[in-house]
Amino acid sequence: MSEPTAAREPRRGREARRSARAKAASLSIPYIRRNIPLTEVLSAEGLEIIERNADTLLQEVGIEFRDFPRALDLFRAAGCDVQGVRVRFPRGLARALCATAPSRYVQHARNPERNVVIGGDATVFAPNYGSPFVHDLDRGRRYGTIEDFQNFVRLAYMSPFIHHSGGTLCEPVDLPVNKRHLEMVYAHVKYSDKPFMGSVTKPERAEDSVRICELLFGAAFVRDNTVLTSLINANSPLVWDSTMLGAAEVYARANQACIITPFILSGAMSPVTVAGTLTQVLAEVMAGTAFCQLVRPGAPVVFGTFVSTISMQSGAPTFGTPEASLAIFGAAQLARRMNMPFRTGGSLCASKIPDAQAAYESAQTLLPTVLAGTNFVLHAAGWMEGGLTASYEKFALDFDQLGAMHVLAKGVDLSDNGQGMEAFRQVEPGGHFLGCPHTQANFETAFYRSNVADNNSVEQWQEEGAKDAATRANALWKGMLADYEAPSLDPAKDEAIRAFIEERKASMPDATY
Amino acid sequence: MSEPTAAREPRRGREARRSARAKAASLSIPYIRRNIPLTEVLSAEGLEIIERNADTLLQEVGIEFRDFPRALDLFRAAGCDVQGVRVRFPRGLARALCATAPSRYVQHARNPERNVVIGGDATVFAPNYGSPFVHDLDRGRRYGTIEDFQNFVRLAYMSPFIHHSGGTLCEPVDLPVNKRHLEMVYAHVKYSDKPFMGSVTKPERAEDSVRICELLFGAAFVRDNTVLTSLINANSPLVWDSTMLGAAEVYARANQACIITPFILSGAMSPVTVAGTLTQVLAEVMAGTAFCQLVRPGAPVVFGTFVSTISMQSGAPTFGTPEASLAIFGAAQLARRMNMPFRTGGSLCASKIPDAQAAYESAQTLLPTVLAGTNFVLHAAGWMEGGLTASYEKFALDFDQLGAMHVLAKGVDLSDNGQGMEAFRQVEPGGHFLGCPHTQANFETAFYRSNVADNNSVEQWQEEGAKDAATRANALWKGMLADYEAPSLDPAKDEAIRAFIEERKASMPDATY
Repeated sequence: MSEPTAAREPRRGREARRSARAKAASLSIPYIRRNIPLTEVLSAEGLEIIERNADTLLQEVGIEFRDFPRALDLFRAAGCDVQGVRVRFPRGLARALCATAPSRYVQHARNPERNVVIGGDATVFAPNYGSPFVHDLDRGRRYGTIEDFQNFVRLAYMSPFIHHSGGTLCEPVDLPVNKRHLEMVYAHVKYSDKPFMGSVTKPERAEDSVRICELLFGAAFVRDNTVLTSLINANSPLVWDSTMLGAAEVYARANQACIITPFILSGAMSPVTVAGTLTQVLAEVMAGTAFCQLVRPGAPVVFGTFVSTISMQSGAPTFGTPEASLAIFGAAQLARRMNMPFRTGGSLCASKIPDAQAAYESAQTLLPTVLAGTNFVLHAAGWMEGGLTASYEKFALDFDQLGAMHVLAKGVDLSDNGQGMEAFRQVEPGGHFLGCPHTQANFETAFYRSNVADNNSVEQWQEEGAKDAATRANALWKGMLADYEAPSLDPAKDEAIRAFIEERKASMPDATY
Repeated sequence: MSEPTAAREPRRGREARRSARAKAASLSIPYIRRNIPLTEVLSAEGLEIIERNADTLLQEVGIEFRDFPRALDLFRAAGCDVQGVRVRFPRGLARALCATAPSRYVQHARNPERNVVIGGDATVFAPNYGSPFVHDLDRGRRYGTIEDFQNFVRLAYMSPFIHHSGGTLCEPVDLPVNKRHLEMVYAHVKYSDKPFMGSVTKPERAEDSVRICELLFGAAFVRDNTVLTSLINANSPLVWDSTMLGAAEVYARANQACIITPFILSGAMSPVTVAGTLTQVLAEVMAGTAFCQLVRPGAPVVFGTFVSTISMQSGAPTFGTPEASLAIFGAAQLARRMNMPFRTGGSLCASKIPDAQAAYESAQTLLPTVLAGTNFVLHAAGWMEGGLTASYEKFALDFDQLGAMHVLAKGVDLSDNGQGMEAFRQVEPGGHFLGCPHTQANFETAFYRSNVADNNSVEQWQEEGAKDAATRANALWKGMLADYEAPSLDPAKDEAIRAFIEERKASMPDATY
C-alpha cells in the first residue's frame, strides 16, 4: 500500500527513485516491433533440403501419438497411415494440414494496453519457465515456493522490457501438485496485468486455466479472442504424449494459443548435427500443429523450438553454444516458410551462479534470438543452471539486456535529427559534441541507459564497495519488489476467481506431491 | 624447456593435458572463412544518405591535417581546397582517391602457416591493444610491465582461436617510453610466430618496426609483401594529427598496412546519433585512406571503426551498448561499399572485473562484430575497464568465446553426414541418439567444446569448490603459460635483431618516461 503524495511536491532520494521506477513500469513497452533486417544462416537450397528431409521423416519413420486414441482417429481420417500409435504422413500432408494456422494473433491482457501481437515483426519477451529451484545471493539455492512465484510475477510486471507474465516462473514446490496450477494462474491475474500462460500438466488444469480467464475476461470474450498462450512440449524424438496432447486439445478447442515446441538437447534427443536437428524440429512441429488444426482449424499455434547441445564428454546440457545459435537462426527461417509465429531462445545458461559464464551464454542466446526475428521469447529473463534454477539476480541482469534489445531492434534512426548534420555545423574539427545544441536536444533519449552496468572510474567503483554485477543486481531486484504496487483488479472478478479456485481445491484430494 | 618424451608412451594427467594444449596451439586455425550471410541494419537508401552526408561533411566542414605540411601539399595537388590546416574535398574526390586501396591483402607471418588474409570473407582475431594497466585475480590491478606484455604474447600464441599477435597488448610501463616499442616488437617476433603490428607513436618508431621486419623476413620480401598491419587512429572529430600521419606515411611508403580508425565515443567525439556518427566515421576514414593512397597508391589500408557510446549522466565511456552494435553493423556495410577490408569491435566492456557485466558487454560486442563480417578484430580478447586494463582472466574467457565464433561462422553443415538422415533410421521414436552409430561417428567434432563453461551438476560443481568462471579462467591462463614453448627462431636473425635493438637504444637518451 502506498500513501498518497501531494502531486506537485518535489520528491527526492529514495522516494523519487521509487516513483521513477513505478513510472517506468507503467510506461512499459507492449512489445518490440523489429525494424532491422533478419539474420539468416540457411540458403533457400538449404531450407529445401531440410524441408524435404522432414517430409521423408514424417513419411518413412513417422511420429508416435501415445495414449491418445482421439489423435490417431483424427490423423487416420485426414489421410495418414496409422499403425499402432505410429502416424506416418504422405509427403506434403502435414504442411497442408498446418495451413489453417494463423500467421499472427493478438494475445489479450486484462489491461488492453498490454495486449501483445504474436507473429510478424513483433517480438514479445516472457520470463523464465519451469524451474524447480530458485536462487538469490542472500539465501542461495533452494526449492521454489509460491512466494517466489509471486515475486517473479511482480518483477516481470515491474520491468518495462518484459511484455508477458509467462507461465511457471518457478515451481511452487510448497503447494500440492494437484492444486499448484490454480495459485500460479491466480498470481498472474492478481499481481500483474500483462498477458500470461495457462497450465499444461493435465487437461483438466488447462480447463481450469481457461475457466479463470472466462471469469476474468468474460466467457464471450474468451470464445472470440486469444487470452492464453501455453507451452506444449514434444517428447522428442518424434513422440507426442497424452499429457501434452490433452492440454493442447483443450486450448485449441477453446481457440487459445499453443506453442508447439520440440524440446531438444541435440545429440541426445536428436541427431548430433544442426541440420539433422532442424529436420526433426520441423517434423515434430508440423505433426503437433496439424493435430491442433485438426482439433480446430484456425486455432492459433506458435512454431516452437527449444534446441541446445550436450557435452559429449558428460552428456550434460550446454547453453549459449554456436550450434544452438545456428539452430535458432535456422528454425526461425523454417517457421517463416510455414507462415507461423516463432518461439525460441531466451537468456539461457548452464552456470550455477550469475557470473561471466551465465552472461556470456545468455547473451549468446539472446542476441541470436532477437536477430533471428523470434516472435515469442520464453526464458527471456531469470534462467540459470540449465533451467533448473530461477535466479533473482539473473532476472535483474537480463531485464537490462532486454532493454538494450529494444534499442537494437529499432535500427538506425535516419530522420533529419538522426542524421545529425546540424551537429557538424555546431562543432568545429577537434571540438566536443557534449555541449552542442543537437546533443542537448537529444540528451534524454540518446543512448540506452543500463541500470546494471557500472561505468564509473575504478576509484569510484572501489569507493562504492567494488561490487560485481551480481551484487548490484541483488539491490536492483530488492528495489523493484520494494517499489511494487499491484495493478488494480475488479474486486468482483477477484472474488469470483478466488471462489472458483477454492471450490476446485475442495473437490480435490488433500495433497499430492 | 620441455624434456623429450618417448613418442608412443601413454601420458596421463597433467602431462597429457599439457601435451593436448601444446598440440592445440600448433593446430591453430590461421583465420576464419565466414560461411554465413552477413547481418546488415542499413538499407541501400540509408547507406546512400550517410554517404551523401559524408561527402557534404568533407566538402563543407572538411578535415584538419595538423602539423603535417606534406599532407596539405598532397591534398592541394590532388584538387582539395586547403585553407590553413583545413582540407575540404570536392564531392566524390575522397572516395575516388581511395579507389587504389586493395580490397584484400595477405599479411605474412614468420611462420607461413600463420599468414592471414585481411578482407573478403576472412575474419582475423587479434588481442587487446593499448592498456596501461593489467589485472589478474591474484595480484589485482597494476601498471603493465614488459613481462606482462610477453605473457600476453605467449597466451595469444597458445590460443588456437587468436590468429594475430596484435600490437601494444599492454603498455610496458617499466620500460622508457622512447625504447618501449623495440622490446614490444621484439616480444612479438621472439615469443610468437603469428603476424603482428608495428609501433605508431612516432614515425621513427614505425621505421624501427619496419627495420626489424626486414631483419626477420629479408628486406626484399618486406618490399614486396605486407608483414605489418598497424593502427592509425584519427583524432576525432575530423582531425588527423602529425604523429598518426607520420607513422601512416612510413608504413604506406613501405607498402605496409594501416588500419585507418576513427576512435569515437559517440556523443562526445561525434554526434549523439548512430547515423551522424557513421557519417563522421566514413568522412574520417576516406580522408585518412586518401592520404595513404596519395603517399603510395595501392598501399593496403583497412577501413577501421572504433565506436562506442558514453553515459549521458557522467560522460563515462560505455560498451556493449545497442547503439555501438548498430554502428558496427552499419560501418561494415559502408566499408564493403568502399571495397575495403573492415576492422571494428572486439570483446569490449567497461567492467573493472571479469564478472557478468564484462561478459554481457563483451558478447554484445563480439557477436555483432562477427555477424557484421568484420575482417580484422582488434581487442578480441583481454580487454577490460574500457580498455584501461588488460585482464589475464578475461584473455582466457574471451579465447573460449572466439572458439565458439569459429563454429558459428562455419554455418550449417548440409553434407549427407550433416543432414543426419541415417541417424533417424538408427533411432526409433522415443529413443536416444547418444549411442547411435551416427552420433558415435561424429563424437569428436560434433559440438564446440568450451574449456571455460562448467556444465556439471550443482552438486559436482560445489564439490569442486563452487568456482565462478573468472576463478576457473585464472587456472586456465596459468596452465597455458606453464605449457608454453616458444616457436623456434633462427638464432642468426634473433642475434641481428637484438643487435639492431641495442644499437638503437644506445643512440637514444637514457630514459624518457
